[in-house]
Amino acid sequence: MSNHHSASVPESFPMNCGDGAYSYTKNSVYQKAASDVAKEMVNEAIAEKLEIKILTATSNTLRIADLGCSVGPNTFKAMQNLLQAIERKYQNEGLTSKLPEFQVFFNDHAANDFNTLFASLPPDRQYFATGVPGSFYDRLFPESSLHLVHSSYALHWLSKVPEGLLDKNSPAWNKGKIYHTTASNEVVNAYAAQYIKDMEIFLKARAEEIVVGGLMVLILPGLSDGTHHSRFPAGLIFDFLASSLMDMVNEGLINEAQVDSFNLPVYTPSPKEMALLVERNGCFSVERMELTDPRSNIEGPIDVGKLIMHLRAGMEGVFSKHFGHEIVAEMFERSLQKSAELSSLLESSYTKGTQLFLVLKRK
Amino acid sequence: MSNHHSASVPESFPMNCGDGAYSYTKNSVYQKAASDVAKEMVNEAIAEKLEIKILTATSNTLRIADLGCSVGPNTFKAMQNLLQAIERKYQNEGLTSKLPEFQVFFNDHAANDFNTLFASLPPDRQYFATGVPGSFYDRLFPESSLHLVHSSYALHWLSKVPEGLLDKNSPAWNKGKIYHTTASNEVVNAYAAQYIKDMEIFLKARAEEIVVGGLMVLILPGLSDGTHHSRFPAGLIFDFLASSLMDMVNEGLINEAQVDSFNLPVYTPSPKEMALLVERNGCFSVERMELTDPRSNIEGPIDVGKLIMHLRAGMEGVFSKHFGHEIVAEMFERSLQKSAELSSLLESSYTKGTQLFLVLKRK
Repeated sequence: MSNHHSASVPESFPMNCGDGAYSYTKNSVYQKAASDVAKEMVNEAIAEKLEIKILTATSNTLRIADLGCSVGPNTFKAMQNLLQAIERKYQNEGLTSKLPEFQVFFNDHAANDFNTLFASLPPDRQYFATGVPGSFYDRLFPESSLHLVHSSYALHWLSKVPEGLLDKNSPAWNKGKIYHTTASNEVVNAYAAQYIKDMEIFLKARAEEIVVGGLMVLILPGLSDGTHHSRFPAGLIFDFLASSLMDMVNEGLINEAQVDSFNLPVYTPSPKEMALLVERNGCFSVERMELTDPRSNIEGPIDVGKLIMHLRAGMEGVFSKHFGHEIVAEMFERSLQKSAELSSLLESSYTKGTQLFLVLKRK
Repeated sequence: MSNHHSASVPESFPMNCGDGAYSYTKNSVYQKAASDVAKEMVNEAIAEKLEIKILTATSNTLRIADLGCSVGPNTFKAMQNLLQAIERKYQNEGLTSKLPEFQVFFNDHAANDFNTLFASLPPDRQYFATGVPGSFYDRLFPESSLHLVHSSYALHWLSKVPEGLLDKNSPAWNKGKIYHTTASNEVVNAYAAQYIKDMEIFLKARAEEIVVGGLMVLILPGLSDGTHHSRFPAGLIFDFLASSLMDMVNEGLINEAQVDSFNLPVYTPSPKEMALLVERNGCFSVERMELTDPRSNIEGPIDVGKLIMHLRAGMEGVFSKHFGHEIVAEMFERSLQKSAELSSLLESSYTKGTQLFLVLKRK
C-alpha cells in the first residue's frame, strides 16, 4: 500500500458538471445505447461466471466497484442491472434467503462532481452507496476487498498524454493534429506504448484488490484486430474537431502551437492487444472477450449532431483545460455546422465492432 | 437492509461550504481544541481497548468510519491520529510486519460538500479514502463491516425538530425561543424524547454494522448529570441569537411567527442519559465515559467573537434554510456586537464538563 497515494496523480478531466444543456447527465444517450448492448452480456456473465458461494464464503457482503462512474444516470442503471442479475442468480440456485448485502463503490477522479452523484442516487437503491475519489491507474481499495468490478467507457482514457507527442524534436511530435487517427506510426506507437503502461498498472492494482474468483466486467471502445486507427469512428470525429481548430488557426483566432501542443489522451485497443496485456499480467483468466456493435440498438443513420453533443459532454473538460471555454464552444459549433460532411464520412468508414466487452476472472 | 434507504430522510444542514471567511474549514478552531482534549483519550482507548488480533482475524483490512465528518480539516486530523494510535498498538505488540491496510469511510449527509472534502484529502494519507453520503440515523454500511467508528461533534444533531414544538396547541410549543435552554419542561422533554428516539436508531444501526469486538468512539457536547440545560454554554449563545432575532421582530424586520416556528434540532445529553440508552440497546459495553473540559486547552478567557464565528460556520445552514441568508447574517452581526454581554454571562455560568467522551465496544 505504501505508494498507492504518493504516485503521481494522473490528469483528470471530469465530465461536464450538473444537468445543463451540455452536461454529461443529459448527453449520455450514445453511452446508454452502448451499455444496453452490453447489458445482456453482463447478465450472461453474472449468470454463468459468478461463483456466489465462493465470493460470500467469509462475509455476507458483496462489494462492487464502478470505475470511472462519472455522475450518472448510466452508472446507476449499470449497478441496478448488476444487482438484479446477481439476485436472479441467487434465485436460480435456490439461495434467495441468503441474499447478501451489497456495497457499491462509485469511483472517479477526485475532481468528478461527487456532490451531483450523491444528490442523484436512486432513493430506492438496494445497496449501500460510497464514493471513491482517485484514478484507477493506482490502488483505490484494500487488498482482496472487491467481488465485482465494472467499468464502462472509462478505460480508453490514458493516465496522461503519451511522451514524445509534445516534443518538437521527437519523431512522435503530433503537429497540427490532436489524435493519432491519421498520424504517423511513431505517434500511434507512442499512444499504444502509453496504453500498455497504463493497463499494466490498472491490471496489477485490480489483481490486488479483487478476491480470488471475483469478476471484472470492462466495456470500452475497441477496434477489431488489424483495423487501422483511422477507421475508428470517434477518431474521425476527433479529426473533424481538429480541422475546425485548424480553421480557427487560419483565421488567427488561435495559435497553431496551441493545437500542436494538444493531444487527446484516449486510446482504443484491439482484442488482441487486450488479450496480450491480460496474459502478461497473469492474474486473470479471460472468460469472455468480444467486439460488439453498440449501433445495433439505435435505429436509422448516425445522428452526428447527437454524437458530437455526446462527445462534448464527455470531453469538453479536456479541451477546455487547454484551449479555454470560448474556443472550445466555437470548435463544437463549427463542427456541428459541418455535421452532414462528417455523417457521410462516418457511414462510409463504418466498421461493425467498436465496443470491446471483456469479462475477466481473478485466478 | 430492506429499509435502510427507504426510511424518511432526516433533515440535513451542511456546514458552510468551501473555504471562505465564514466557512467551516476556517472556523473550526474550537472544535479542534475540543478534539485535542479528546486526542489523548482516543490514544488511550486504542492502546487499551482495541483487540487487533480479533479484528483482523479474517481479513487484512481495518475499516474505520468517521460519522458526521463535515469537510475537514478536523476529520483528517482525527483519522490520522487514530491510524497513528493503531500503528503504535501494533508496534507495542510486536506486530509491525502485520500492519493491516486501512480503509476510511468519511460519512455525512448527501448535501455535505464531498467535492471539497475529496479535493482536500491529505496527499500523504496512509489509507484508502471513501465517502459515504447519508444520515447516521439510518443504516449506512453492510453488517459487521466496520472495526472502528469515530464521531466528533455530530451526534448532538437531532434527526429533526422534536414534535410538538411547532404546534400552537401543544404544551411543548416553543414560542419566541429557538432552543430549550430557558424553555418549559414540556419543551425540554420533547427534545429529550427525540434524542432517545434518534439514539435508539443510531445504536441499533451501528450494532449491526460494527464487528464483535469493534470500538466506537463518540465525542459530543455533554452536560453533567443534574445540571440544568440553561447552564449549557452553547445554549446561552442560542438564547443570545434568539434575542437578536426578537430584536429584529420588534423592529419589524421579521415576523414573530418565523421565530416561533424555528427550533434548533440539537440536544446535549448527560452521561446518565447516554448510559441508559447504551444499556437499553444492549449490544455495547461502556469502556469509558467521561465529561471533559474542552476549554482546558485554550488559554485565557472565552473569546466570544470566535465562539460565535465558530457556531456560525457550523450552524448557519440550519438558520439560513429557515430565515434566509440576509436575516441570518444580520442576526450574527448583532450578536457579535453584543459579545461583551454574552462573555460575562458565559463566564458566570461556566460549568467544567461540557464534552462527553464515550468509548463503546461491540459485545
